[in-house]
Amino acid sequence: MKRISILGSTGSIGTQALDVIAENEERFQVAALSCARNTELLCRQIEKFRPAAVAVEREEDASSIAAEYKDVEVYWGREGLEAIASMEDCDMVLNSLMGMRGLEPTLAAVNAGKDIAFANKETLVVGGELVMKAVRDKGVKLLPVDSEHSAIFQSLQGSGQNEIRRIILTASGGPFRGFSLRQLESVTLEQALAHPNWSMGSKITIDSATMMNKGLEVIEAKWLFDVPLDKIQIVVHPQSVLHSAVEYMDGSVIGQMGNPDMRIPIAYAFSYPDRLDLGTMTESLDFFSLKDGMSFYPADRDVFRTIDLAYEAARMGGSCPVVLNGANEVLVEMFLKGKIRFIDIQNILIKVMETHEPKYNLSIEGILEEDSRIRDDVRKMI
Amino acid sequence: MKRISILGSTGSIGTQALDVIAENEERFQVAALSCARNTELLCRQIEKFRPAAVAVEREEDASSIAAEYKDVEVYWGREGLEAIASMEDCDMVLNSLMGMRGLEPTLAAVNAGKDIAFANKETLVVGGELVMKAVRDKGVKLLPVDSEHSAIFQSLQGSGQNEIRRIILTASGGPFRGFSLRQLESVTLEQALAHPNWSMGSKITIDSATMMNKGLEVIEAKWLFDVPLDKIQIVVHPQSVLHSAVEYMDGSVIGQMGNPDMRIPIAYAFSYPDRLDLGTMTESLDFFSLKDGMSFYPADRDVFRTIDLAYEAARMGGSCPVVLNGANEVLVEMFLKGKIRFIDIQNILIKVMETHEPKYNLSIEGILEEDSRIRDDVRKMI
Repeated sequence: MKRISILGSTGSIGTQALDVIAENEERFQVAALSCARNTELLCRQIEKFRPAAVAVEREEDASSIAAEYKDVEVYWGREGLEAIASMEDCDMVLNSLMGMRGLEPTLAAVNAGKDIAFANKETLVVGGELVMKAVRDKGVKLLPVDSEHSAIFQSLQGSGQNEIRRIILTASGGPFRGFSLRQLESVTLEQALAHPNWSMGSKITIDSATMMNKGLEVIEAKWLFDVPLDKIQIVVHPQSVLHSAVEYMDGSVIGQMGNPDMRIPIAYAFSYPDRLDLGTMTESLDFFSLKDGMSFYPADRDVFRTIDLAYEAARMGGSCPVVLNGANEVLVEMFLKGKIRFIDIQNILIKVMETHEPKYNLSIEGILEEDSRIRDDVRKMI
Repeated sequence: MKRISILGSTGSIGTQALDVIAENEERFQVAALSCARNTELLCRQIEKFRPAAVAVEREEDASSIAAEYKDVEVYWGREGLEAIASMEDCDMVLNSLMGMRGLEPTLAAVNAGKDIAFANKETLVVGGELVMKAVRDKGVKLLPVDSEHSAIFQSLQGSGQNEIRRIILTASGGPFRGFSLRQLESVTLEQALAHPNWSMGSKITIDSATMMNKGLEVIEAKWLFDVPLDKIQIVVHPQSVLHSAVEYMDGSVIGQMGNPDMRIPIAYAFSYPDRLDLGTMTESLDFFSLKDGMSFYPADRDVFRTIDLAYEAARMGGSCPVVLNGANEVLVEMFLKGKIRFIDIQNILIKVMETHEPKYNLSIEGILEEDSRIRDDVRKMI
């Protein structure tokens, strides 16, 4: 029986993870759950999965949950997340938090010796070096849940010492694929939230529309697979059937395909190296239903300038990815609140990165400070 | 240093295998070579690769080669092939023979404890049970070289005990994809020999045009991967980029892609589980050059009736695949000689299989007898 804690259990990944657990209760058990403010759903999850502990964002929510569920340990705030990430009766932590606030709980879980099912790319973007060092030191597994990184991970199974020539990181291209810069100027929030293939949280959906998501994934892939940036190629593939692939030095390309269903990578991370029989949950990929087949295009980096920003930030290293990510998190939030236009996200990011003076050898506190500073700066700019 | 013998060194696979060996002479050495009658090319290969032994079809060719190359052991005939397949100073035998005459040398090599690089599907079609039993008993490796089976094998690496839901065996569809039965009646030899993607020997090129090749590959896959027939799905994929794939029970599909270049699967079989750096030989797959993307269609079994014949023969087992294969070998030969029309190949096969009374528990002699009998019968029918 594997005991799993879920950070972010009321989000898109969290709820799908609970689906997987519910269908495989002979293998998995929920150790702890956490959410920010969606306590209504959290309470339903508590009743169904009977976790030993939960964590929420606010103290008042913690109190009312504790009053209702006497046998559940209830934590709150940043420390609450870290408490359930490192609690004793737990084997694996699914980090499906949104944004870089997943960094500290990830480190807490790794340092407590937990395996991590990882769906929180911002954490590796800002703290890749620290996290990967802790993972190596503690000898835990960091198992990717992002569909692309899971695809790469699956394509690397059995590869032994074989050298990688290239990672092919596929991208749907989002709702604005083929748009010109001018067209991007007048797109609406509603359009930006309408992702063609995947149903996801709003932050990642906007990141997909700006292509920043793919930029962040490049940085995530660099850390997860220890591959230089120039070996990671973004390939736009609108049908999202090939989830990503690896080319080896003999020219052979191994890729993972499937219907866009996050329960496949979630289940794989939970049960790795075994696969679960998801017979009742997942439909087989019907190659014949792919009306336009599978098509592939280069990313338009002149329009979606977030891609070059991400490569450049990763190349520079140090505080650069921290600043890019922190600024992006604030800008997406402002766009979601209707305070800026869609195109402003990348325009302001370009300005921010142009003027940023990189700092190096950041500790965890240094990262948090840099993140906090850039968020203030960006808020002031608007 | 791995010492490799090549059965069929002057054919398409054989010459490409020698290219791979020539480019990797620090790893591989040629132990022995064989050909049927192309002794001119064989002599050039002897001079370049200095094998200890060679085998040819006819005694007179053996004599003249022996006179010219005093330090080479020269064998001839069926026994000659078996002698070099089982010779002492050899680690691996590449079987790139054409047709079921590869059966006895394969068994000789396996029984002598050699690993096999396998590019001779007819041998498994007629003798799969015997060959696989010998492979298990001797603990040798049978490494597929056919591009589809290599793709499946590559997709199975690192799969551990994970259950297979389906094997997706891709097919280019050959030069007559989309043709009606009526159109097939008037196609020419020249058209049948013009394969859209692969440059191969004439027997396999005609088999690709009739789709019998895919039928034989289904049977080969069943034996190589120990998978029931109903889990092997033929998917027509005209671009031949996805060389085949495996769907696991979680719905995840792992596939192998690449340019159509047989040196990739040959090199993989030679150096498994390592991959060779084929940097100078193989171009990277350019996803962006796939103008029509990758498309997928069901096979038209009403037109290409060889497919159902192959599934049915494999389902019946015993002598059925032997008879189907033997009849097909003769019919392809006759078509190549202009004695029958293209459509006659499948029409006569249908007749042959309708009237065949299956025999079971065939020994190797029984298989050879059955093969010989059906060849005579088919020759008499025309």
